[in-house]
Amino acid sequence: MASKVPTPKGFRDFLPEQARARAFVLEKLKTTLERFGFEPLETTAIEFAETLKGKYGEEEKLIFEFTDRGGRSVALRFDQTVPLSRVVATNPNLPKPFKRYQIQPVWRAENPQKGRFREFIQVDFDTVGASSQLADAEIIAAAISATENLGFDSFVMKINDRETFRGLPAGVVRIIDKLPKIGETGVIEQLKRQGYDSPQAKALLKRLKDSAPTKNINKLFELLKSFKINPDKYAFDPTLARGLDYYTALIFELEIEDYSGGSVGGGGRYDDLIGRFTGSKIPATGFSFGFDRLLEAASEANLLPKYSPNTKVLVTVLKEQYLNDSLSLVSRLRDRGIAAEISLEPTEKLDKQLKYADNKGIPYAAILGPDEIKQDMITIKDLSSGKQEKLKESDLIKKLTIT
Amino acid sequence: MASKVPTPKGFRDFLPEQARARAFVLEKLKTTLERFGFEPLETTAIEFAETLKGKYGEEEKLIFEFTDRGGRSVALRFDQTVPLSRVVATNPNLPKPFKRYQIQPVWRAENPQKGRFREFIQVDFDTVGASSQLADAEIIAAAISATENLGFDSFVMKINDRETFRGLPAGVVRIIDKLPKIGETGVIEQLKRQGYDSPQAKALLKRLKDSAPTKNINKLFELLKSFKINPDKYAFDPTLARGLDYYTALIFELEIEDYSGGSVGGGGRYDDLIGRFTGSKIPATGFSFGFDRLLEAASEANLLPKYSPNTKVLVTVLKEQYLNDSLSLVSRLRDRGIAAEISLEPTEKLDKQLKYADNKGIPYAAILGPDEIKQDMITIKDLSSGKQEKLKESDLIKKLTIT
Repeated sequence: MASKVPTPKGFRDFLPEQARARAFVLEKLKTTLERFGFEPLETTAIEFAETLKGKYGEEEKLIFEFTDRGGRSVALRFDQTVPLSRVVATNPNLPKPFKRYQIQPVWRAENPQKGRFREFIQVDFDTVGASSQLADAEIIAAAISATENLGFDSFVMKINDRETFRGLPAGVVRIIDKLPKIGETGVIEQLKRQGYDSPQAKALLKRLKDSAPTKNINKLFELLKSFKINPDKYAFDPTLARGLDYYTALIFELEIEDYSGGSVGGGGRYDDLIGRFTGSKIPATGFSFGFDRLLEAASEANLLPKYSPNTKVLVTVLKEQYLNDSLSLVSRLRDRGIAAEISLEPTEKLDKQLKYADNKGIPYAAILGPDEIKQDMITIKDLSSGKQEKLKESDLIKKLTIT
Repeated sequence: MASKVPTPKGFRDFLPEQARARAFVLEKLKTTLERFGFEPLETTAIEFAETLKGKYGEEEKLIFEFTDRGGRSVALRFDQTVPLSRVVATNPNLPKPFKRYQIQPVWRAENPQKGRFREFIQVDFDTVGASSQLADAEIIAAAISATENLGFDSFVMKINDRETFRGLPAGVVRIIDKLPKIGETGVIEQLKRQGYDSPQAKALLKRLKDSAPTKNINKLFELLKSFKINPDKYAFDPTLARGLDYYTALIFELEIEDYSGGSVGGGGRYDDLIGRFTGSKIPATGFSFGFDRLLEAASEANLLPKYSPNTKVLVTVLKEQYLNDSLSLVSRLRDRGIAAEISLEPTEKLDKQLKYADNKGIPYAAILGPDEIKQDMITIKDLSSGKQEKLKESDLIKKLTIT
């Protein structure tokens, strides 16, 4: 077996430091979403391929599909919205509106490149079975609150309505959708390839940019005002055009200022998808955070706590004859809820034990020698300053509980 | 599209009630493991098939393997130990001992049957790079503490040492391994098929059952005593024989009394696996909770909290003209950390709005009508008793914060 054992391209492991940063961001998002009344849902990683197909338009070729041992065509979860529709179809008695959040990996056979992976987490929350704009407003309010709770302050939710594009052919809307990527010149170039001449293309783009907010949007903005959302945090953007195959009315996209990796999330109203499995129309609206981008933006904005291991203290073993005392101490600390470790190679020299704590970033080491045991005290060493002091166990517990 | 849209056999969705119960158990386990100094690790869902193969012995046929678009043979994560070895091999600078926990789904092409699924979560924790029995003792202490923290009190960690089987052919140990499933008669029957006559088979089994604890086990028990683990919670079991292809010394298995679904977890020392990728020997010891069984056992023992949605209160909308007041109220409640919902179809009659709260299990409804608005009060209705009272907002917040 080779000594380098790689992961397939586009797949990543997360070592403790990264795993902790991920857990920090997810916890913040969950807290906000639960405050808005969204409940957790988990769906299967593998679906029948036919469940997933016919839903994603052009992206469909990115589905990881294979044949199982029973000869059935199955596929890995590609997003969390089609699984949501399936769950709603197979559980007709779910109380509606059904508000759920879902945080699971999805898999796409993308060409791996910077910031694009084949396995990544999506953080979705959706309201199924409510047609009012209030449901859209609540989704936007939740997304904005979650972003604020992460500590971001300069960001904006761009909002548009599919109605803004009324009368425009789908091909044209698809070109408009590329505006952030290819710029106005690019859009005009591509419109020309669709048969527009240059003045027509420019006029079309200008007309769009000058569009007035639709009735839907005016109503939405009123509701966001009632929700006490800071008006700096959202804006009408008449050229925003996402998910043509998917969204049916309001659409929105979250951009964080100073983050250059693109929008960190998006969503909208999609009244036609959920009902496809049942044949009935079921209104729905939702939002999806791109977790990797959000995490990257949070990291760039210094919103992530500095990594340190859970362990607050390493209890060392001075000599094997004191092992029993050290073991009792580590157990009592753990019983008090303090994350504590014991040197697992107790025959090693103290220096080497301290080096383990240092390498791992454990802030304190506790030392129990003959003097300490006689005096019923513990020597505690601050591994960054090198300072040490003798404490009673109760004081040690206090010290480690507050840090 | 058919109206019934199933999931493939052996795959499950978890609706909010189940998802919450799962999160409850996982949170308890994580808390304990972090207290013992285990740090989180996440690995890729998909590995190169060659990474996984040659590690699982007979179970290998259960690997979900397929060819990706690049024509490479890949496979879904089958357990979390081989991925751990790969991570250790590809990250030679990880401080050792490396103590990590990992909570992710694994996939096995099992024949689905009661309690056996094709996608399920494993809760693993392992210490890599420590050869002392202290590391085994700590793993056992952590597993026992986690089980206690979940609220179980009648359970036992059965412990054995591979040394107990010294001199016995592998085929015989494999038969002993089936003892819990097929009983003594079954074992004797199968031994006879291996060429033993009946008295020999009986004598072999008797000799095993009468084995004295090995030196390893005696040392381990001393350490568990120092760790202050209640001696009722572990026992030497000379016929315990798990993972012949895998474990090299101490082995252990957790059984919960009154739970008939089999052991809820197991582990042991496996000094030969981690180093396979690097060619060097790296000692390791660990434990894996079977999450589904643990959850089922917790449910049967009434250890799971009664399900209620996150939402503490539904703010109703009496008439559309009061919508603005209701929206402000729900926002203020959320700002105070209270999980609150607003009726998302505000034109519906109050009765229907209350019915939503009732269906979802939301305990309170807040009503804001003209009198309440004039008096700067809120009517709060307890939806299980039907009682209602008028409160000032500050009192409402107090009431909802403590319930």
